[in-house]
Amino acid sequence: MFSIVVIGTGNVGLHLCKVINASKDLNLIQFYNRSKINITNSLRNIPFTSEISRLKEADLYIIAVSDDAIEKVSNSLIFEKRLVVHTSGFCPMKSLNNKNRRGVFYPLQTFTKASNLSFKNVPICIEATDKKDRKILKNIANTLGSQTYFIQSEQRQALHLSAVFINNFTNQIYRIAHELTDKENLDFNILKPLINETAHKVNNLSPYLAQTGPAKRNDKKVIKKHLSLLNNNPNYQKIYEILTKSIQKTHG
Amino acid sequence: MFSIVVIGTGNVGLHLCKVINASKDLNLIQFYNRSKINITNSLRNIPFTSEISRLKEADLYIIAVSDDAIEKVSNSLIFEKRLVVHTSGFCPMKSLNNKNRRGVFYPLQTFTKASNLSFKNVPICIEATDKKDRKILKNIANTLGSQTYFIQSEQRQALHLSAVFINNFTNQIYRIAHELTDKENLDFNILKPLINETAHKVNNLSPYLAQTGPAKRNDKKVIKKHLSLLNNNPNYQKIYEILTKSIQKTHG
Repeated sequence: MFSIVVIGTGNVGLHLCKVINASKDLNLIQFYNRSKINITNSLRNIPFTSEISRLKEADLYIIAVSDDAIEKVSNSLIFEKRLVVHTSGFCPMKSLNNKNRRGVFYPLQTFTKASNLSFKNVPICIEATDKKDRKILKNIANTLGSQTYFIQSEQRQALHLSAVFINNFTNQIYRIAHELTDKENLDFNILKPLINETAHKVNNLSPYLAQTGPAKRNDKKVIKKHLSLLNNNPNYQKIYEILTKSIQKTHG
Repeated sequence: MFSIVVIGTGNVGLHLCKVINASKDLNLIQFYNRSKINITNSLRNIPFTSEISRLKEADLYIIAVSDDAIEKVSNSLIFEKRLVVHTSGFCPMKSLNNKNRRGVFYPLQTFTKASNLSFKNVPICIEATDKKDRKILKNIANTLGSQTYFIQSEQRQALHLSAVFINNFTNQIYRIAHELTDKENLDFNILKPLINETAHKVNNLSPYLAQTGPAKRNDKKVIKKHLSLLNNNPNYQKIYEILTKSIQKTHG
C-alpha cells in the first residue's frame, strides 16, 4: 500500500492526516510536528515524531508547514531521491531542495481545524517535475475524492491571489455586514440565506451575469443614501465607493 | 381564501406570483404590469391587466415595482382602506399613499428570473402600521415557507445596505477572481468549491472567527507579491489594498 508521511499539523496538515488515515487505499505511516501536539483521537494509533531525522521511509512526504518554513524543512530532510511535495498555493515548487523528487499538492480550500470537510469539495492543484510523479499525485488526490488540476507555479500564484479575493476578501465583506447589522440590533441570521444564494448562484451563472443592484443600474439616489448611512465609518464608505465604481466599470 | 393581487412582474413580482399561485392556501386573483408581458405557463390561468383602474378587489395588494415608481403606483390606486404593501428594501413604508392600510413585505434575497428559489430560503422583512396587518403579512410569509422578521423602515435601510455588501460586492469579488483566472487560462470552476465553503463556513462561525490568510497574519511577502501580480490593474490593486487594510483593522 502507498505509504505517506505528513510533515506539519496545522489546518491543512491535520486535515490531510485524517483523510489519508481514513482511506483504505493509503497508508499514513507517520506524522511530524516540530513541537509535541495534542493528538486527536482518530490519529492516536499513528506514529508521531518531532524529530525530522527520525522520519520513516515512505513513498511520499507531504510538507504542510508555513510558507516561510518550507525551504528549511525540505533542506533538513536526511534522505534523497524520494517524492517530496509541499501544499502551498504561494511558494514555487523550486523552494523545495532538489536532492529529492519535487512536487506540489495544493488543496484549494479553506480549512477549519474544528470541522471536517469532504475532500470531494477540495480541488487539488498538482505540479511535479516528473510525469510519473504527477500521475502518482493525481491518483492520491482522486483516492481522497478530490478533483485534480495540473497547475504550474506561476499559474498557481494567480490562483492563490484569486483565492484571497474569494475567501479572505469575501469573508471581510461578510464581517462588515455583520457589523452593520449588529449596530442596528439586527439579527445577522437574516442575511445568511442571501450569503448562501449569492455563492450558489455563480455555480451556474457567471458573476458577470449574476450582478444586480444599485451600482449596476447606477441608482444614484440609493448609492447616496447608503454612503450617508456609512457617514460614521469612512473606511467602509471607501470600500462601498471603490466596489461600486468597480461594478460600474465592469458593466459600464 | 385570502386573495392577493401582485402589481409588477419584475424578478420579485414574478417570483411572488408563482409562489402565491402554487400555494393551496392563497389565491392569486390577478396580476398587473404596466405593459403587456409574455406570461409564463404556470400563470396562464390567472387574470392579467395592464390597467391600474381595473384591479380587482382583494385582501392584499403587493406592489413589486422599481423604487422610483412605488409612490406613483400607490397614488394611482382607485380604492381605499385596503392593505397595500411594497417589496422594497430601500423605500420607507411612508412612500405608500395613506389612503390605504400600508405595509412592507421585503424579501431579502437575490432573484433570477430563470431559476426557481424555494421561499424557505427567502426571509421576509415585515412592517405595517396596524398590528392585525402585521399578523396577516406574517401568516402569508409563513404560508409561503419563509422566515419572518419585523423590521422598521430605518432598520430595513441598514439591512438593505448590508445586502448590497453581501450580494453585489461579494459578487463583484467573484467577478474579479473570474477575470484573474481567465487571464491565466485557468478554469474558474477550480474556485467554486472555495466560493461555496466560504459562504457555508459563516453559517456556523462568525466572519470574524472565520478569517484567515495573508492580511490577517500580516504576511508582507505574500501581500507584496500579490500586489505585483496586479501591477497591470491599478483598480484591483486598490481593492486588494483597501480590503487588506480593513482585515488588519478588524484583527489588528
